[in-house]
Amino acid sequence: MRLEDVVIAGVGSTPFGRAPDATLKTLGAAAVAAALDDSGFGAPDVDVAVVGNAVGGSIMGQEMITGQVILGDIGITEIPVLNVENACATASSALHLAIQAVAAGSADVALALGVEKLTHPDKSVPLLAIGRAVDVAETYGDGGPSAAARSYFMDLYAGLALRYAERTGATDEDFARVAVKNNSHGRLNPLAQYGSELTVEEVLDSRMVVEPLRLLMCSPISDGAAAAIVTRRDRAPDVTGTVDVLASVIGSRSSAPDEATALARTARRAYETSGVGPEDLNLVEVHDAAAPAELIAYEDLGLCASGEGPLLLRSGQTALGGRLPVNASGGLTAKGHPIGATGLGQVYEVVQQLRDRAGSGRQIPGARLALTENAGGWVGDDNAAIAIHILGRTT
Amino acid sequence: MRLEDVVIAGVGSTPFGRAPDATLKTLGAAAVAAALDDSGFGAPDVDVAVVGNAVGGSIMGQEMITGQVILGDIGITEIPVLNVENACATASSALHLAIQAVAAGSADVALALGVEKLTHPDKSVPLLAIGRAVDVAETYGDGGPSAAARSYFMDLYAGLALRYAERTGATDEDFARVAVKNNSHGRLNPLAQYGSELTVEEVLDSRMVVEPLRLLMCSPISDGAAAAIVTRRDRAPDVTGTVDVLASVIGSRSSAPDEATALARTARRAYETSGVGPEDLNLVEVHDAAAPAELIAYEDLGLCASGEGPLLLRSGQTALGGRLPVNASGGLTAKGHPIGATGLGQVYEVVQQLRDRAGSGRQIPGARLALTENAGGWVGDDNAAIAIHILGRTT
Repeated sequence: MRLEDVVIAGVGSTPFGRAPDATLKTLGAAAVAAALDDSGFGAPDVDVAVVGNAVGGSIMGQEMITGQVILGDIGITEIPVLNVENACATASSALHLAIQAVAAGSADVALALGVEKLTHPDKSVPLLAIGRAVDVAETYGDGGPSAAARSYFMDLYAGLALRYAERTGATDEDFARVAVKNNSHGRLNPLAQYGSELTVEEVLDSRMVVEPLRLLMCSPISDGAAAAIVTRRDRAPDVTGTVDVLASVIGSRSSAPDEATALARTARRAYETSGVGPEDLNLVEVHDAAAPAELIAYEDLGLCASGEGPLLLRSGQTALGGRLPVNASGGLTAKGHPIGATGLGQVYEVVQQLRDRAGSGRQIPGARLALTENAGGWVGDDNAAIAIHILGRTT
Repeated sequence: MRLEDVVIAGVGSTPFGRAPDATLKTLGAAAVAAALDDSGFGAPDVDVAVVGNAVGGSIMGQEMITGQVILGDIGITEIPVLNVENACATASSALHLAIQAVAAGSADVALALGVEKLTHPDKSVPLLAIGRAVDVAETYGDGGPSAAARSYFMDLYAGLALRYAERTGATDEDFARVAVKNNSHGRLNPLAQYGSELTVEEVLDSRMVVEPLRLLMCSPISDGAAAAIVTRRDRAPDVTGTVDVLASVIGSRSSAPDEATALARTARRAYETSGVGPEDLNLVEVHDAAAPAELIAYEDLGLCASGEGPLLLRSGQTALGGRLPVNASGGLTAKGHPIGATGLGQVYEVVQQLRDRAGSGRQIPGARLALTENAGGWVGDDNAAIAIHILGRTT
């Protein structure tokens, strides 16, 4: 699609974290209001809305028309509202469709919202819900997800971590270092759920979830919402605040285990589409639902050669102050992971960085080009969905 | 969006009905295979898929990545897959996004699939699920939908019917006549769940669901799937089988009770977009989730003047053989209503009619222009979503 004239004009995000009294409506409304305010547009300017939510059915009973329920309450009515879902890649799928609506000429001003209320008085409820981001019948049989499903995704990430360690020599200390780095970033992010100056030893001393994953290597259960306003460059009220969309690419699972992963393939397409290469990037947000996934992403995104993820991490280049900060926001590990909002949370971070508005000691000087990688669900031997956006300030 | 070159190249549908052993996978795979076969494309040609499902979470535990789960099993992998939902307007929302993907140049060949497994050994399960297509917190409070919710939508349609009767003088016999007409159409449709030559008296003798709705006036609980292949005209393998997309418009709820309904507003936009007026249409499929809704749709679609729905019906013009057959497929009342598949089921019917392939005694001679109206959910005083497509054979 033709992206030349498509820009992000504004972004908004709630804090990510445990918000027991929040609802899909309060979270969604806050993110939309912030994004509109940031963009210079008002609610009446929005002419299409794409709303992402993953497990509102399981958690809140709101299985359908979540977008209309949230937006009607804040006076956004009459316009087309599309509800979209792609497991943990839901929010960036919503952004992709908002971008497509502008590119197709369906809309001048498109709202993308990702929202998730994940915390629940019964802690097993969100874990069971997340565990459904798979082929449910194949994974659990007729009985459906059960208590056995509770650590499904951490089991999965643990398996990936073990295979990655075997292939690259990555150690438990390396996995801990990802968490240390991202928590030190999260400490500087007022929207992050967690953040502190941890040591590798503290991470390795935290509770074992599934070998080799320790509690502090795993993204938490979070509530939150994030939104973006997409428009054509010539419609943006404040041109100085716009960010260019250079690529918006969605991919899905590979056909066979020996193929390139969805992540690697989708990254390749995003680079081809944008003409931007990994060497051009100034910052990256990756989907570290568990810390080892960040190292795998380094390689699949081409930030380093195959097998050199641990080296890149240890070099300090992916920490704030380094050549290519990864997860300056704190990442999913520290910033939090309200699954249907996460992708737009990543976009919120890079848009603020590209506009030189990240503040809080997190600003990456002179950041011009950024990539976000958002992964969702698991089918066969691969992510069900990968969404990659490359955004920039090129003017 | 520019629709000039966008066509539907193929359609496929399962029978609608009770399919206790079917799953989302078996239903979805069958509809996709039929649509591909009909289009002349193969699975490897598809470069984006938009998959609609409304209540797979409630019924099957498959709350997320339904599209990837279905498509992976039939060898459609790697491509972008977007899962979309808009309550009972889910499938035509999927079609809208497939059309948009082609219009935007994101895809040359886009698959739209709508699928629903609604029947369940516990009959209350689908009724409770459907009852969630509202603002759940506002409608049911913190307790969520309960047994009291079971007839929520029939309560709602009953209220609409009573108000419509008061305004227009429509009688219970008129509502029964809709069911009589649609069942006589359904009898000719091999894909329809029901169909027989009923009398008005038989309909009025059927069990009262909610005053004034009798059982035979209400759409049944159904399983099913339907799909369409969207492409550019110059890519279609068989140009003689293509149908032009003249309008694909989504609207959402009105802001205030005294405004035009989402249905009336969205229809107006579809007519404006396409340059087609109601007087140009040769057939229409409307969302008769309950029979009285068909009469309301006559008026909101401009098929007759305000208040004249019962007259239009009684004239016989909207029956097969009449000037403007409505619900030649049998409509939701007789054909069935697998909610996330319904909109593409409507599109399946009109595409076959426009290609002179409806057969079975249902073919409308010389049909050139058709409209489908698909409605989803309820928020405030209006449908949460309305999707209208105008399709034609204009060459």
